[in-house]
Amino acid sequence: MPQGRPAGVPDDGLTTRERRNRPLVIVHTGEMKGKSTAAFGLALRAWNQGWPVGVFQFVKSAKWRVGEEAALRALGRLHEQTGEGGPVTWHKMGEGWSWIQRPGTEADHAADAREGWAQIRRDLAAETYGLYVLDEFTYPMKWGWVDVDDVVETLRARPGRQHVVITGRDADPRLVETADLVVEMTKVKHPMDAGQKGQRGIEW
Amino acid sequence: MPQGRPAGVPDDGLTTRERRNRPLVIVHTGEMKGKSTAAFGLALRAWNQGWPVGVFQFVKSAKWRVGEEAALRALGRLHEQTGEGGPVTWHKMGEGWSWIQRPGTEADHAADAREGWAQIRRDLAAETYGLYVLDEFTYPMKWGWVDVDDVVETLRARPGRQHVVITGRDADPRLVETADLVVEMTKVKHPMDAGQKGQRGIEW
Repeated sequence: MPQGRPAGVPDDGLTTRERRNRPLVIVHTGEMKGKSTAAFGLALRAWNQGWPVGVFQFVKSAKWRVGEEAALRALGRLHEQTGEGGPVTWHKMGEGWSWIQRPGTEADHAADAREGWAQIRRDLAAETYGLYVLDEFTYPMKWGWVDVDDVVETLRARPGRQHVVITGRDADPRLVETADLVVEMTKVKHPMDAGQKGQRGIEW
Repeated sequence: MPQGRPAGVPDDGLTTRERRNRPLVIVHTGEMKGKSTAAFGLALRAWNQGWPVGVFQFVKSAKWRVGEEAALRALGRLHEQTGEGGPVTWHKMGEGWSWIQRPGTEADHAADAREGWAQIRRDLAAETYGLYVLDEFTYPMKWGWVDVDDVVETLRARPGRQHVVITGRDADPRLVETADLVVEMTKVKHPMDAGQKGQRGIEW
């Protein structure tokens, strides 16, 4: 349906305009593909609105997200050159976060993840981005590297109009509770069940 | 997990390489958001591989997909100018398909949908694209405008290496049966339940 209709109007003292523009916390979870691709699809909409997009990629494999990264970086360059769309900043854990000057050695991943989260906190406080893509961020929470209560509290208290999308399996119930929108990608059928292997252009 | 592992190796006579490169039919269905955004996220990967991307947008609302369209068209222009990525072609039902010269009047939507499918058939036969995004294509099938058996047969018989992703609710069981990968986007929580309205940058 082109225009969603709310099920009811809450008694929250907000005007329609305020309610419409309320910044969202979105979670893409579930066992199946599409969690991150849908987040990067959202980034296209944000880019088109001219919002600064900040991607924080909490994954280590070099192959992952190469397609999305190349395309979104290209859109960011286009913005720099022509003013079209918005700026794109891409932070990657695997190679050391972009704001840390140190070689990409086999580092302490827990410390890396905590550094990533600390930077996100700083950016949220500074209202750096209009959309944050926290890709695979459920895992550092699941593994206890990043404190879920701190994440939830920080998201709830974030100022201004900043949308945040978090992807990954096994989203913590506290994160689900605080999120405005939670989608679960569930499996109906997967080609690996039929012996299919991952392939370029599809998985990365 | 960075590298998916197939559950077993089928006795299909294919080499690992052939199996890896097998073109896929992908369906994103379910009641929840993320079906189309994930398809456009896949388009970023395809673009980065240099594959020609063909989008067929089976929706009528002018507001829908404006973000994805602007961003993917920008990537297509970038390809024309610099050779980076692949070409992008965007076909839209609401304004008359791009290959039909006629004013975008309140036309017969069933005929429009059939024309769209006829063009997809021609493009599949000609191996025009590496990735087809058939956005909201489940609906013309559901409404009987496009014959499901014809779609399934055409997809099964398509030549070469053409990936096809179809989005929309209520995917026909025959389509699910023929697809290699089917993801269902299910609702855990939706802001419209709390009176939230759709907003730019998120819904379009």
